[in-house]
Amino acid sequence: MFRKIADEILLHGTCYENLRVLCKTVGHRISGSPEAANAVAWGEKAMKASGADKVWLQAADVPYWYRGKESLSLKIGKKYKKVDALSLGNSEGTGGKTLKAPIVMVHSFDEFYALPDSKVKGKIIFFDYRFRQDFVFTFEGYGDAVKYRWASPSIAAKRGAAGVIIRSMSTGADDFPHTGGMHYNDSFKKIPEMALGNETADLLEQACKKGAVTAKMKSECHMTPDLVRSYNVIGEIRGTERPDEIITVGGHLDSWDVGEGANDDGSGCVQSIEVLRAFKAMGLRPKCTIRAVLFMNEENGGKGGEAYADSAKAKHEHHLLAVETDAGGFSPRGIGLVMSSREKEHILRYKDLFLPYGVYDFSREEGGSDIGPMHKKLDAPLAGLVPDSQRYFDIHHTNNDVFENVNHRELKLGAVTLAQLIYLVSEHGLN
Amino acid sequence: MFRKIADEILLHGTCYENLRVLCKTVGHRISGSPEAANAVAWGEKAMKASGADKVWLQAADVPYWYRGKESLSLKIGKKYKKVDALSLGNSEGTGGKTLKAPIVMVHSFDEFYALPDSKVKGKIIFFDYRFRQDFVFTFEGYGDAVKYRWASPSIAAKRGAAGVIIRSMSTGADDFPHTGGMHYNDSFKKIPEMALGNETADLLEQACKKGAVTAKMKSECHMTPDLVRSYNVIGEIRGTERPDEIITVGGHLDSWDVGEGANDDGSGCVQSIEVLRAFKAMGLRPKCTIRAVLFMNEENGGKGGEAYADSAKAKHEHHLLAVETDAGGFSPRGIGLVMSSREKEHILRYKDLFLPYGVYDFSREEGGSDIGPMHKKLDAPLAGLVPDSQRYFDIHHTNNDVFENVNHRELKLGAVTLAQLIYLVSEHGLN
Repeated sequence: MFRKIADEILLHGTCYENLRVLCKTVGHRISGSPEAANAVAWGEKAMKASGADKVWLQAADVPYWYRGKESLSLKIGKKYKKVDALSLGNSEGTGGKTLKAPIVMVHSFDEFYALPDSKVKGKIIFFDYRFRQDFVFTFEGYGDAVKYRWASPSIAAKRGAAGVIIRSMSTGADDFPHTGGMHYNDSFKKIPEMALGNETADLLEQACKKGAVTAKMKSECHMTPDLVRSYNVIGEIRGTERPDEIITVGGHLDSWDVGEGANDDGSGCVQSIEVLRAFKAMGLRPKCTIRAVLFMNEENGGKGGEAYADSAKAKHEHHLLAVETDAGGFSPRGIGLVMSSREKEHILRYKDLFLPYGVYDFSREEGGSDIGPMHKKLDAPLAGLVPDSQRYFDIHHTNNDVFENVNHRELKLGAVTLAQLIYLVSEHGLN
Repeated sequence: MFRKIADEILLHGTCYENLRVLCKTVGHRISGSPEAANAVAWGEKAMKASGADKVWLQAADVPYWYRGKESLSLKIGKKYKKVDALSLGNSEGTGGKTLKAPIVMVHSFDEFYALPDSKVKGKIIFFDYRFRQDFVFTFEGYGDAVKYRWASPSIAAKRGAAGVIIRSMSTGADDFPHTGGMHYNDSFKKIPEMALGNETADLLEQACKKGAVTAKMKSECHMTPDLVRSYNVIGEIRGTERPDEIITVGGHLDSWDVGEGANDDGSGCVQSIEVLRAFKAMGLRPKCTIRAVLFMNEENGGKGGEAYADSAKAKHEHHLLAVETDAGGFSPRGIGLVMSSREKEHILRYKDLFLPYGVYDFSREEGGSDIGPMHKKLDAPLAGLVPDSQRYFDIHHTNNDVFENVNHRELKLGAVTLAQLIYLVSEHGLN
């Protein structure tokens, strides 16, 4: 059956074409935006086309962060030169005015704390922390570096800084700036934060070593005041023997407002839909209910994931397993497991079945952020698809996260792993 | 030490930059061409820059197949329309004249054999065999399909066909035609052979189902009459304890005359050089001698591999292990082993050391075609790097095999696996 599932998806899968349509007709789709509403419409249509028994929308009220125009110019030498930069998600810009200030470079929080007040007050702090390339699993490098994106502005504002520039959370040997979520501590002033691609960051690093650099920062970005009604898109195949036992598989429908959200996480959306399509096309009638969920607002709020778990709890649903795919449409290598050791052992009994499909790593204890609330609120066991991680942080949250950077076979193989896992648990449970 | 090797290459590796220079300053480099001579000069320089104790050239006389101008037009409906096509390597063209003939489509050799003579004589046979996408390891799909590229012209010429068109050996969801080696049976007429990308092949397939299609084929390609003096490029670090025991690691320097030969096999060349560089940079002094070899003429003759093995045999060299990297610069997944079961067991004892680097598959019994003669003539044990295979046959032998389609981290990780394996065998032998 594992082989049949693989053949069905590798030979007849529609996920790659679905991804093309999502990327090229909807494009990027930040929560609360008109594009996100288009994505919901796309998702509903694609879910129906998969042959799901039932498709519905589940309301979630989400924040809407708006970028607007932005620019950053650096004075290295005598003239200001415009560089490519992106404001970080959730950040407040300069209100459309020009913030002109000297740049002070530090390589870590410790270096920042050691600065005298005179080097902080009114300055733009450049947190030049490099994404560590020595981790083989790049998510570890991301986990190590992301605090600089998330927390720098409030840490700097506490001491009177006027703005923050960061080196992107990027493995890229290129100059794409990476956006991504940041967070303000409400006790301090909300100062703007912008990210540079690696090449521009290298340039700025060199310039700061040599002498004074001044920046002109201008941006309109802001969090809009009201939440916006949005939706998770849900499709379901009803179980034949135990319809009240539910297996969920999902990715997130929202993206940042750059690129096309192809790997993050259009891939996960179309793979989740593909699971339903493959079951239907093969005439596989699962014993328990299988749901594909396109979660809204993973990137800056997690409101969709919360809404799904809250609804499940309110309805006293029994969730056998929740599976997330949100690490890019790359060749699968493993399945992360967040569950009891007895449940893990049960899955590991079937480990060798996955090996011919390149899936060998069951060691990571990670599910995903959209299904996290299912674990917290319903104690549901979680699983997360673990694709090859080498290319993800080259393109993550950039204008380069486009359809062309997803490979059709890699994307499909990820869907194969998901469908195989779900078939297994649907047939044999977790105990 | 495995970790130190990985850190050295991931943080300080020069293989990606070396590949950029090879691809962007030399470009494609078919055996016998002026570009191949440039590649030898590049290789010598890059090998010296690695810090090798000794660098030298080893002569190999190679064939030179010359493409020249070529065009293919298909009359589907009323007008001829030019399509993108590539003559297959080693094939004789139309001598610059236009070959105009009706197309007869078959999907297999069996279908071809079943054709009446009237449907073969004077016709252009379109061998429309699809690369099987159901194999997870794509080299199996290639092995299955490649006979149509290799043997179709003589099989068709035997019955009087005028030419052959094939569907490329391609997993690509695109229209790149793939060139690659073909072979004539000297008993029959040498008729031309051209390959179509998948999209044009689909178009032609549809058109042939509907009605008559005629082709105009024009090409100048031919095998030039004389062999050309060329070279393998060899670099060596001399062993401290057992200098007479040699471990070879290599890829091939020649490519087809399209694209930039980035994955096939610029990647293998720069990874092999990287092994020497890393050892030198780390001050690792291997117990036995380590050689990196850039083999010439893998694509259409294998003369470099033969020359290397012949020289080793003539000098009674003791080759402990020969390792090849010629399957693309993608994330490593395994190491193929061609050796005695005792030797295999010895390597498998260290299997778990490779796991943190994503290398888990030691099941494939494949070395590589350049080191094949070392096994045949010297009974040397072989190993072959097994990278992820999903993208290789999208770009293999096409204009799309360019530097931009190699990822810096994936390329480096492949070099890490090679260096780790070689360190292991250098320290602990194979027994």
